[in-house]
Amino acid sequence: MAPHGEGSDGAVEAMAAQVENHPISSILIIIAMQTEALPVVNKFQLTENPHPAFPKGVPWVHYHGTYKEITINLVWPGKDLTLGVDSVGTICASLVAYASIQALQPDLIINAGTAGGFKAKGAGIGDVFLASHVAFHDRRIPIPVFDLYGVGLRQACSTPNLLKELNLKTGKLSTGDSLDMSPQDEASITANDATVKDMEGAAVAYVADLLKVPVIFVKAITDIVDGEKPTAEEFLQNLAAVTAALDRAVTQVIDYISGKCLPEL
Amino acid sequence: MAPHGEGSDGAVEAMAAQVENHPISSILIIIAMQTEALPVVNKFQLTENPHPAFPKGVPWVHYHGTYKEITINLVWPGKDLTLGVDSVGTICASLVAYASIQALQPDLIINAGTAGGFKAKGAGIGDVFLASHVAFHDRRIPIPVFDLYGVGLRQACSTPNLLKELNLKTGKLSTGDSLDMSPQDEASITANDATVKDMEGAAVAYVADLLKVPVIFVKAITDIVDGEKPTAEEFLQNLAAVTAALDRAVTQVIDYISGKCLPEL
Repeated sequence: MAPHGEGSDGAVEAMAAQVENHPISSILIIIAMQTEALPVVNKFQLTENPHPAFPKGVPWVHYHGTYKEITINLVWPGKDLTLGVDSVGTICASLVAYASIQALQPDLIINAGTAGGFKAKGAGIGDVFLASHVAFHDRRIPIPVFDLYGVGLRQACSTPNLLKELNLKTGKLSTGDSLDMSPQDEASITANDATVKDMEGAAVAYVADLLKVPVIFVKAITDIVDGEKPTAEEFLQNLAAVTAALDRAVTQVIDYISGKCLPEL
Repeated sequence: MAPHGEGSDGAVEAMAAQVENHPISSILIIIAMQTEALPVVNKFQLTENPHPAFPKGVPWVHYHGTYKEITINLVWPGKDLTLGVDSVGTICASLVAYASIQALQPDLIINAGTAGGFKAKGAGIGDVFLASHVAFHDRRIPIPVFDLYGVGLRQACSTPNLLKELNLKTGKLSTGDSLDMSPQDEASITANDATVKDMEGAAVAYVADLLKVPVIFVKAITDIVDGEKPTAEEFLQNLAAVTAALDRAVTQVIDYISGKCLPEL
């Protein structure tokens, strides 16, 4: 079904088919941190929308522009109003995904960002992954069916041609609101068969699924979770350098998408 | 600042003052589970809004009605579209809080629901708490300032007269997306000095703070977290009986609020 509107299901299906058979014309990029977002903003010469369609007082920032006939919207949840740090994590990612989809009705969402990687699953610093599946690793609800709801496994929009053409790595992404990893998180990440660990992906997937917008996940590895260095230290050390790799990958993805329909990806 | 609108800060402040000095006329009750919501719906003879101001396709349910000149809106995030279980947890609570505040512009939010309690801090099965503070216990980000963002400590709207008059218990509420409690969660709950543990409160508080709407938390204890019985078993066993206590407390709160301004609570 379409994000919203009053159309009948028939009309909605026709609209969905129309979107699938026409070149992608509008992309929404959701990025959690300013350091990750600004290189992309600069690369595509996006400008900040001084009057975003968000409620007054929220710190959410909307950049937009046009690149190769695609309208690019980039939304960053901004700095926490009280503490001044980036509004990372699942709640802010969900809220900006919801509000941005409502306001901008994109054809495709790209959730881009830095992430942790597992060397045992083939991840190295600076690698860029296109996630095949996303799930949560910190929502343990040991009641039948609620347990599956907690895990919230979802498939990313299938893009076999994009993956092959760009020679990106692929793997499963696991999301949680902690930067570190408790033994319980680790067990869930193992159960999720994840190669990549972030703090937003599965939340963006939940909202995209709810509002029926396809989503892909481009994640660049800043720290090796199963390595020797503490995550926070390694993350901060590599953040700036790895965002350059992320920026390159996002550019390649958008270049590839340009002029194509969803089923061609 | 007000939830939204184009007014200048002066106009917004005047509006806020006006709300404070006039009797509360519109309440938004946010409840995560159908079993918790239905007694309140029946008690106040609320009816389901067949055309809620939510996007097409979302499972969110809006009940409304009038009681003693107060417009009562109750929003329940509904059953998960894929799995059919109640949409519990912080992401759905955030999304329905956001969308409902935008649509309904309430004077006050009541986040009501069942919760776990710590007997070491004085909680017993069936007790109803009015939370003084809320915080998260499963968002560990060990980087200076980000750590505080993760904890997300917020104060509930101060209601000393309500608390005294209704003879409710009070204590701090800690929120996380798991029904169980890992050792890391436990350490954070201890650091949060919490008496009550739920899966939505701090998320509702975050959104209410973002959109500048006062919020109170009415939580009824279904299971003793530091007791001998497994949480899931005790929760399911007591859910129906304890929702009756929750229903009574919510009714008392609304009866007390009726005809009063915010500073009188």
